[in-house]
Amino acid sequence: MWERIANQVSIVGIGLLGGSIALGIRQKGFGGKIIGVARKPDTLGVALEAGQIDVGTSDLGEGVYGSDLIILATPVNTIIRQIGELGDLADPQAVITDVGSTKASIVTAAEERLVNPGRFVGAHPMAGGEASGPAAARADLFRGRPVVLTPTSETREEALGRVRRLYEKLEMKILEMTPTVHDVKVARVSHLPHALAVALVSLADTSGSMDLASSGFGDISRLAEGHPDIWTDIFLDNDKQVVSAIDQFLTELCGIKTLIESGDREALGSMLAKLATLRQAWRKAKAYDEQDSESDQGRI
Amino acid sequence: MWERIANQVSIVGIGLLGGSIALGIRQKGFGGKIIGVARKPDTLGVALEAGQIDVGTSDLGEGVYGSDLIILATPVNTIIRQIGELGDLADPQAVITDVGSTKASIVTAAEERLVNPGRFVGAHPMAGGEASGPAAARADLFRGRPVVLTPTSETREEALGRVRRLYEKLEMKILEMTPTVHDVKVARVSHLPHALAVALVSLADTSGSMDLASSGFGDISRLAEGHPDIWTDIFLDNDKQVVSAIDQFLTELCGIKTLIESGDREALGSMLAKLATLRQAWRKAKAYDEQDSESDQGRI
Repeated sequence: MWERIANQVSIVGIGLLGGSIALGIRQKGFGGKIIGVARKPDTLGVALEAGQIDVGTSDLGEGVYGSDLIILATPVNTIIRQIGELGDLADPQAVITDVGSTKASIVTAAEERLVNPGRFVGAHPMAGGEASGPAAARADLFRGRPVVLTPTSETREEALGRVRRLYEKLEMKILEMTPTVHDVKVARVSHLPHALAVALVSLADTSGSMDLASSGFGDISRLAEGHPDIWTDIFLDNDKQVVSAIDQFLTELCGIKTLIESGDREALGSMLAKLATLRQAWRKAKAYDEQDSESDQGRI
Repeated sequence: MWERIANQVSIVGIGLLGGSIALGIRQKGFGGKIIGVARKPDTLGVALEAGQIDVGTSDLGEGVYGSDLIILATPVNTIIRQIGELGDLADPQAVITDVGSTKASIVTAAEERLVNPGRFVGAHPMAGGEASGPAAARADLFRGRPVVLTPTSETREEALGRVRRLYEKLEMKILEMTPTVHDVKVARVSHLPHALAVALVSLADTSGSMDLASSGFGDISRLAEGHPDIWTDIFLDNDKQVVSAIDQFLTELCGIKTLIESGDREALGSMLAKLATLRQAWRKAKAYDEQDSESDQGRI
């Protein structure tokens, strides 16, 4: 089965995601060589010690040599730069994929810069957390979580099939959509929530209210601990969609504000009841998908 | 020690909070009678079976008769109504306290309506969660969490001392401030977060983005499952402070939006870094306070 996915895998960027992919494919029986590429020797050391990779290098060309599957797991703007470099370095027959949180700019770069753009498959495995680095990697990080694949008219079916099988092995729930639709949706359910967490921490601090912050604040502000550089990249790379998501959110929040100001108990109550039901339905569907992953269980 | 707190306790409203106070004081060795007051016989049945209360009644007068400590644990607007009724029903020497999420309107009602307002102590034990009802009650619900006491110039020191000792028994972190300062702060760290969760679920739904919702959305939207009636009460009772908190939040969020639009990588990055550090500091201080309570442990 693995030969229909890859014989040798290069993972460029050994952080939480790259390290977890390495652990995950090993756990699922991948027998080939796993090469890790990272800028810092320390990172390679941790990944080697943890048995995530067989070989480590900080040289991209050396790191992708001989691999038939190359997974770019660096921050978004680094992925775009590395796609430019891979044009000359990667085996033209290798399938190249990425794990970037935004897709339109990455897929566009791949189609402009790669020798063989049909063998690039944009992907976004939606897992992670505040922790980062290879030390935080887990073989089951992806289990039950969604992964979005963003093939275009250029994408070769065989390359798409190999990436699809890779994530099936990692037990992810596979979705396919265009890069732009992906960016519109993640701006609303992933990037916007991060902006909300950040804005809330800022407000709680400037208003001197932190001393009364309890579990509700904890839930909403948790994301604000995400890696600043990674999130700066994401916000700036998906800026148009994030800004439009913020604008839509401002409208939603003003609607709630107006309801509160109006004092219309019935309208406010029925809106809260409707959204509580929606959130419960989402949680139950999600819990069904992710029995084993960090879900809300025990917290509700 | 308990004789310096109460000989007989009436808990009016046997939900998550009322039931947990009953279980908590029993676990901490309170030997006197605990009377539960609830509208629904089913509620009283659950609380009696769970050993939360010794006697149950749906009649307020019967329920507070002979008690020297009366704890109002109903929704905010019900607390205000019951304060009016207690004027005639409660022993003038009884200490009356409440667990309402807002304080100014409740304390004002107490000072206007009670025979002996000096024996009323406004309190807000800050614990709970999405679950509600006596079946969700836990003896350790409050451990390590903050409780805000809101005495005024009218409040008798002896009454304040008894309520303070009650919450010390439940291992809560006691804070004192005016009712208005409490309402300003909770609007920002508790009521606003609830509004954000609700607005996000609404946006995710209307924009058709729920299929990509993952753990980040889960964190930020969890509060939206809170009890609609309870939250309608809170929003409408603390409406002025909630509206001003929403206005301040809109300003914070627009600031982030402007930074993203400006594309100023350095300014955005340093803001995210500063707020990540603030959030970490808050979590570490909080985790230190609440080793045993639901904290972020294991999620970060």
